[in-house]
Amino acid sequence: MMRIQDVVITPIAFADPPLLNSAGVHEPWALRAVVELRCGDGLVGLGETYGDAPHLALLRAVAPALTGLDPFDTNGLLRRIRAVLGDADTPDRHGLTGGSTPQKTALRVLSPFEVACLDLQGQLVGRPVVDLLGGRVRDEVPYSAYLFYKWAGHPGAAEDEYGPALDPDGIVAQARLLVERYGFGSIKLKGGVLPPEQEVEAIHALRAAFPAHPLRIDPNAAWTVETSLRVAAETDGLLEYLEDPTPGIPGMAEVARGATMPLATNMCVVSPDDLPEGFGQRAVGVVLADHHYWGGLRRSAELAATCRAWGVGVSMHSNSHLGISLAAMTHLGAALPELSYAADTHAPWQYGEDVLAEPLRIVDGAVRVPDAPGLGVRLDPDALARLHENYLRCGIRERDDTAYLRSIDPTFEKRRPRW
Amino acid sequence: MMRIQDVVITPIAFADPPLLNSAGVHEPWALRAVVELRCGDGLVGLGETYGDAPHLALLRAVAPALTGLDPFDTNGLLRRIRAVLGDADTPDRHGLTGGSTPQKTALRVLSPFEVACLDLQGQLVGRPVVDLLGGRVRDEVPYSAYLFYKWAGHPGAAEDEYGPALDPDGIVAQARLLVERYGFGSIKLKGGVLPPEQEVEAIHALRAAFPAHPLRIDPNAAWTVETSLRVAAETDGLLEYLEDPTPGIPGMAEVARGATMPLATNMCVVSPDDLPEGFGQRAVGVVLADHHYWGGLRRSAELAATCRAWGVGVSMHSNSHLGISLAAMTHLGAALPELSYAADTHAPWQYGEDVLAEPLRIVDGAVRVPDAPGLGVRLDPDALARLHENYLRCGIRERDDTAYLRSIDPTFEKRRPRW
Ligand SMILES: [Mg+2]
Ligand SMILES: [Mg+2]
Repeated sequence: MMRIQDVVITPIAFADPPLLNSAGVHEPWALRAVVELRCGDGLVGLGETYGDAPHLALLRAVAPALTGLDPFDTNGLLRRIRAVLGDADTPDRHGLTGGSTPQKTALRVLSPFEVACLDLQGQLVGRPVVDLLGGRVRDEVPYSAYLFYKWAGHPGAAEDEYGPALDPDGIVAQARLLVERYGFGSIKLKGGVLPPEQEVEAIHALRAAFPAHPLRIDPNAAWTVETSLRVAAETDGLLEYLEDPTPGIPGMAEVARGATMPLATNMCVVSPDDLPEGFGQRAVGVVLADHHYWGGLRRSAELAATCRAWGVGVSMHSNSHLGISLAAMTHLGAALPELSYAADTHAPWQYGEDVLAEPLRIVDGAVRVPDAPGLGVRLDPDALARLHENYLRCGIRERDDTAYLRSIDPTFEKRRPRW
Repeated sequence: MMRIQDVVITPIAFADPPLLNSAGVHEPWALRAVVELRCGDGLVGLGETYGDAPHLALLRAVAPALTGLDPFDTNGLLRRIRAVLGDADTPDRHGLTGGSTPQKTALRVLSPFEVACLDLQGQLVGRPVVDLLGGRVRDEVPYSAYLFYKWAGHPGAAEDEYGPALDPDGIVAQARLLVERYGFGSIKLKGGVLPPEQEVEAIHALRAAFPAHPLRIDPNAAWTVETSLRVAAETDGLLEYLEDPTPGIPGMAEVARGATMPLATNMCVVSPDDLPEGFGQRAVGVVLADHHYWGGLRRSAELAATCRAWGVGVSMHSNSHLGISLAAMTHLGAALPELSYAADTHAPWQYGEDVLAEPLRIVDGAVRVPDAPGLGVRLDPDALARLHENYLRCGIRERDDTAYLRSIDPTFEKRRPRW
């Protein structure tokens, strides 16, 4: 029987534009880690996850415990991970994916290995991962255009290809570019950056420019309950959902009771422990499942099943990522009957950079599910080496949007809610 | 690619002792249906389900729609079933598994086909079904001794090998026999038959005879809230859980608030639609998952994941069944980290009758997970033919414990609650 012989974890960095959010601004380099589970005879399973130092340390700590594991034994995988991690917890500094607990940390560490195990399983049985998740309910998974307020370029660097977006015109221009290039059929605006009235103005401008595109805004909990309710009223009829307007389940529940559109979250219901309170209080109408912290693809499918029972919608959340994550999300999205909204992806912001030999493409706003066994993607070893070199040289070891913005504007403070 | 070529549904009947419950008494024959999904080249996937006429009619109605299906496409399986069934609903007359809805009916029809698809998948990839569910967390799945009040034999027939059990002594004797033969490590009493004080007496007698065996009682909702609370007080410290003492989620929630032991159910939380209210009201501490109406093994695993998030325990419920169901339950039970209690099984009551070439055995109170690919069991065509002959000749087409008991005692009425 095939067993995991070798676990290789490669931290990488790739250029990232100065995208603004309620915590600060993206640094010039985004970090990820590529996980390879090698079984001999050239058989390799791939996973992709965060590259921040504390998380990387946990990945490296569990790696030696995984050799000898049967790739079908994902129960055993979590058992081994838990045995190594104990009560380890690595909260993210930016808090853009909600609070952390030892449970969430274990599931975050589990994720890339689980994905790599499914990749291995698929290759071993000659089936794409989507077939291991119940079979495809769609051949293409829709993604949304992910708009950001941004500077023209990083301070001291040239203007990037997207240019500035700091007002409604800039946001509409960015949307036109993304929709033209990728054919996106829905649009999300990352908010929480400018005063809410300006962001509401941007939503109205987007609706005028894109009369038929579903719209969303995500201020990353930058607003009070009162402000959230005001924004909800001012965007009535314009949004398919309002994402994390305010911090915490009780606040979200209060907003939900007064808003006409559903609330979505990847900040207040972020691990199984949050489900009883979050669903019990009817705080959210859509969960943005993120397999990177819900423990991989099978557990994300379980989450979707729970959402189905509670009548809660499902979509997917994204951080800066490359093609292994996009492939994993696409297999998952293809297998979920309840995927009721186009998923988020940062993919267009990565300048076409990837670790894959043949990167997946977004066409007509969607990614076609790979047909090849497993995830259906292959590493480009040269690209991996180049991005690892970036990592070694970039000097960044932990994402910190707040510190980066403060280095430019020392008066900036992360406050949730801010308005 | 392997496709389902032929769907064969065979109703069968096997002898059943006169086991009493709150709805009446088991008839001399119990009905089941065996499902075969044939893919050519001798490749067959097996499932087992209810054999009642209304259910059988639905199985037969969907069967033609399943040819051409890829056994990995269980999403497509449900889609095809839903397309045929529409809003069909087949409530069970006895109501021993709670109410019915079109959703529950679709999941009940899905179940044997999903199990058969997993059997096929496992055979195609050379893996036991447990590996397709995340890998084994245990090599043996524990089952409990399932005690019934019973007559010595069916009226007009000879005394059966178990003899009568209509008082504490009879129940203890039955328990001794089952524990001696099968090594069961926990004991369940089917109650709701005699006045509650006599059943409490039986529990005390069992505790005296088996000081270390976890005990449970299941009166199938025969008691009022008040009676349930009284029984809970009188069995304080004796029961690992109290199963469905009273009808409905609100009543169960009221009992749960006053009882010291957790409440278990296979009657009030019986489909995904029941989860928000059941879990929201904290009505139950243990869900007895039954893959026969939760839509198969993957959906039962999803249910277990939901239970885990809400801190609710998991075990498995049983009706009269044969070896295909026992194999399916055993693979599922082996893959669920959260299986916190020994599962129910009627297996010992079937006189060793089975449709399998090599029936699974209960040893030391547990069934060893088969290692062979798929479910790891094979049909015995002669046994299947013999049990189908029973079906043709027995005259029973729908389980009706109440009518059978009324045919013997015309004063009997099914009442829930009765006491
Ligand atoms: Mg978000
Ligand atoms: Mg029961």
